[in-house]
Amino acid sequence: MHTDLSAALDIGGTKIAGALVDGHGRLLLRAARPTPAGEDGTTVMRAVAEVLGELAAGPDWSRVAAVGIGSAGPVDAKAGTVSPVNIPGWRDFPLVREVRSLAGRRPVVLVGDGVAMAAAEHWQGAARGRANALCMVVSTGVGGGLVLNGRLHPGPTGNAGHIGHISVDLDGDVCPCGARGCVERIASGPNIARRALADGWRPGPDGDTSAAAVAAAARAHDPVAVRSFARAAQALAAGIAATAALVEIEIAVIGGGVAGAGDILFTPLRRALREYATLSYVRDLTVLPARTGTDAGLIGAAAAAQQTHLPTFAPTA
Amino acid sequence: MHTDLSAALDIGGTKIAGALVDGHGRLLLRAARPTPAGEDGTTVMRAVAEVLGELAAGPDWSRVAAVGIGSAGPVDAKAGTVSPVNIPGWRDFPLVREVRSLAGRRPVVLVGDGVAMAAAEHWQGAARGRANALCMVVSTGVGGGLVLNGRLHPGPTGNAGHIGHISVDLDGDVCPCGARGCVERIASGPNIARRALADGWRPGPDGDTSAAAVAAAARAHDPVAVRSFARAAQALAAGIAATAALVEIEIAVIGGGVAGAGDILFTPLRRALREYATLSYVRDLTVLPARTGTDAGLIGAAAAAQQTHLPTFAPTA
Repeated sequence: MHTDLSAALDIGGTKIAGALVDGHGRLLLRAARPTPAGEDGTTVMRAVAEVLGELAAGPDWSRVAAVGIGSAGPVDAKAGTVSPVNIPGWRDFPLVREVRSLAGRRPVVLVGDGVAMAAAEHWQGAARGRANALCMVVSTGVGGGLVLNGRLHPGPTGNAGHIGHISVDLDGDVCPCGARGCVERIASGPNIARRALADGWRPGPDGDTSAAAVAAAARAHDPVAVRSFARAAQALAAGIAATAALVEIEIAVIGGGVAGAGDILFTPLRRALREYATLSYVRDLTVLPARTGTDAGLIGAAAAAQQTHLPTFAPTA
Repeated sequence: MHTDLSAALDIGGTKIAGALVDGHGRLLLRAARPTPAGEDGTTVMRAVAEVLGELAAGPDWSRVAAVGIGSAGPVDAKAGTVSPVNIPGWRDFPLVREVRSLAGRRPVVLVGDGVAMAAAEHWQGAARGRANALCMVVSTGVGGGLVLNGRLHPGPTGNAGHIGHISVDLDGDVCPCGARGCVERIASGPNIARRALADGWRPGPDGDTSAAAVAAAARAHDPVAVRSFARAAQALAAGIAATAALVEIEIAVIGGGVAGAGDILFTPLRRALREYATLSYVRDLTVLPARTGTDAGLIGAAAAAQQTHLPTFAPTA
């Protein structure tokens, strides 16, 4: 039997998911565990091992050629380690070495979760066939990844495309990363909700103060809710325009929970882009919603495992 | 005799320069004309033809393998046309076709002047041996170019790396490009001088109100002059940090007249970078002054002509 599958791991602060993925991006077998994010590193790794164990117990495991990991960042693809902000038990944790030892020493490719999402959208989603693309997730945080010259551009450490932490407001509010006015500090779901509340928006009887609730209010023409989304859209537009000026992208793809607001986000975003993306070679930039949905992390990890230009990790240890 | 030389053209708003460049980046023969920037397109092209004519009249012309052009932007490397902001007579001007007809139909490579400067610094300057670099010119304008994965990244149209027109202050002053708070709008020489004057700085008896005069005042501890440079440094730092977060660069190289201010610029710039470049994978970014000086455009155009991964332009027309 030939090896035509990839094993994919998607490691986030709330869930560790795994799947066997075929050459068409279809998920053949899934496994998942909640992330024991508050526990020590060994306990978190045990959850990863359980997910991998379920995948390895299936009949198709022998068809797996390589393992792709998309992890919450920062990651260090060079060292094979991860230090996810929301998993404090993992700091420079040697995830690649651990996974290799569990995966029959198959080659392992590690990328950040934003890069994985970009790989998914380029392989199976809205960026398919595009040579130069920025793909972003706008959710609790803001992340992203780049496709340049037709290929995934993870950068040397696997973190490239991290548009959430570029400053578009150099005198703005301090971001948890330490800088000021980062795109995430303005455009993430929690910041959309925080700003609406601070400006006087009040939730309905269900008490829901999420960005989705703000989006619903904006859809009902609540001016404060509309303004909070417009501000998020402005920050995203400035960040997308900056990316276009820097590396020449033809499309920006946006996924994640906040993108679920649809026109409430995309209409002011496209309007703001006309203001910030003014240079001749960035003016025709397309913005589209992502297509790979909640499986983006798994599909993207599988796509990364198949990238022949990325160094597969085969440490001597 | 083998073809071991490149012909280089550096086309700017004030000067059209040309040179024959050998494989070590040495300029063997030079020619130049003032740019008749206010004249019609044909007159501007005549100046280019005169520069090329001088190069072609020399004994080494037969050794020229290819022609590289670095031009004030925007350029369109795909179409082979240029539309330099400061040369209004050239709008979508078919420069590549014209140069090919004058250059014995040798292959011609066209890039923007920021990309050319990056090619020069990567080949012969401060970015030599670096796989991922941003090289910038801070002068009357702010431009730049990128080296990614060890290779020049001009982007599909030859304009990538244009850090001068990314917004780092989304509510800031309107920039001539139409956006707000662009790096150039804060950090260019004329904007450093403008801000110092607006804040009360006054020139010496010679009446010199250039950024160089503001730098001299800053060196003499004039607080307004120091502040104007610090603000420019902050904008540059935010832009450099954004670039690092997006594509993972290990070094930023800065040339151009404003970089001539030395520590007056570089000290606050390195300090501000510590504030904006906070992510683990961008924290160790190095900032260095450029080394290729006023010949950067010619050396870079020659370097671009030698890039095997760039499409040499050979239109059927």
